[in-house]
Amino acid sequence: MFITLEGPEGSGKTSQVPQLAKYLRDLGWDVLTTREPGGTDIGDQIRQVLVSMENKALHPRTEILLFLAARAQLVEQVIKPALAEGKVVLCDRYADSTLAYQGYGHGLDLPALRSMLQFATDGLKPDLTILLDLPVEVGLSRKKKEDEWNRLDAYEVKFHERVREGYHILAGEEPARWKTIDASQPREVVQENLRAVVLLSLQNQSLIADSSN
Amino acid sequence: MFITLEGPEGSGKTSQVPQLAKYLRDLGWDVLTTREPGGTDIGDQIRQVLVSMENKALHPRTEILLFLAARAQLVEQVIKPALAEGKVVLCDRYADSTLAYQGYGHGLDLPALRSMLQFATDGLKPDLTILLDLPVEVGLSRKKKEDEWNRLDAYEVKFHERVREGYHILAGEEPARWKTIDASQPREVVQENLRAVVLLSLQNQSLIADSSN
Repeated sequence: MFITLEGPEGSGKTSQVPQLAKYLRDLGWDVLTTREPGGTDIGDQIRQVLVSMENKALHPRTEILLFLAARAQLVEQVIKPALAEGKVVLCDRYADSTLAYQGYGHGLDLPALRSMLQFATDGLKPDLTILLDLPVEVGLSRKKKEDEWNRLDAYEVKFHERVREGYHILAGEEPARWKTIDASQPREVVQENLRAVVLLSLQNQSLIADSSN
Repeated sequence: MFITLEGPEGSGKTSQVPQLAKYLRDLGWDVLTTREPGGTDIGDQIRQVLVSMENKALHPRTEILLFLAARAQLVEQVIKPALAEGKVVLCDRYADSTLAYQGYGHGLDLPALRSMLQFATDGLKPDLTILLDLPVEVGLSRKKKEDEWNRLDAYEVKFHERVREGYHILAGEEPARWKTIDASQPREVVQENLRAVVLLSLQNQSLIADSSN
């Protein structure tokens, strides 16, 4: 079962994933967690190009293609083999981030992005995608100190508003795949909701597997 | 004016380009030559990932995306600015190589490749593309020693036959952009043909520019 977590800055994905993974492992599930970009030797080399301070000339289209290259490698080298071994794969961000940030946020051509994502992932889609949703101001203020927050300009807020709206559109298009959790709740409550959503999906998946035997 | 050279292994592109550039410079043209992958600092870092012997796990789709990333950077950082300054840009391989090798040669989905190429190049197409065309066996035997040539298996020849056929299809689809030169001729004759084709195109381009003033 392939599960991805999506959400804006400050939604707490990255701190929730290890706890969720531990919980599922304690219940006996074989869980692999991974994170983009990187997750493979080759992905880490690509990540170096992406994060190097010397690469100020990196063009936005180059950047997207490098993200997609790292993702293609992650899918082939890590995610597909883990799924083939029956593992639960928990991924912090995946293809929907590209659609939300580059497509809805930066306004890049969505059909072109979808076509490239299809290619990069070989069409591998998550069985379950969880959106940790929260108002933009709440997420941004969690990420910033108070004085920095005061200097946030309208452009930044508007960008993240478009990203959030994009997530809502994506979730609305495939309601069977997406579950939304209110990430403005206390962290422990969000973790409880996450556990409930994932367990329910794992059980449904098992029932389907059992009934087909 | 943006000119690309295409052709199979052993067609002599790489040795013809510097001679052609020198000839055009002697005639007073401002010429920039470039080569893929690489051609920029960032492209060279991407090239390192592509050629590193340690990266045996590099997946073919990762590879294509890395080539496209290097190309996107080359277009933005080198080719577009040079064209804006009125230079003649001579590029040894460009987008058509991806279509010929990955599309026709390896059988990857052509519409998906075209869509990704459109994105990577921001739709920048050559004004003139010259195909250095020659029979597969001639090209391959130029690249190999005799004993290696004897060990060429049918698979390799068939792959290059598909690449060549792909080039013919691409040239047939856009006859105004493509000119084909018989690269099985002696090297000096090929160079003469190249000079004639490029000069004619440059003169036509100048006439169009003049008449629009």
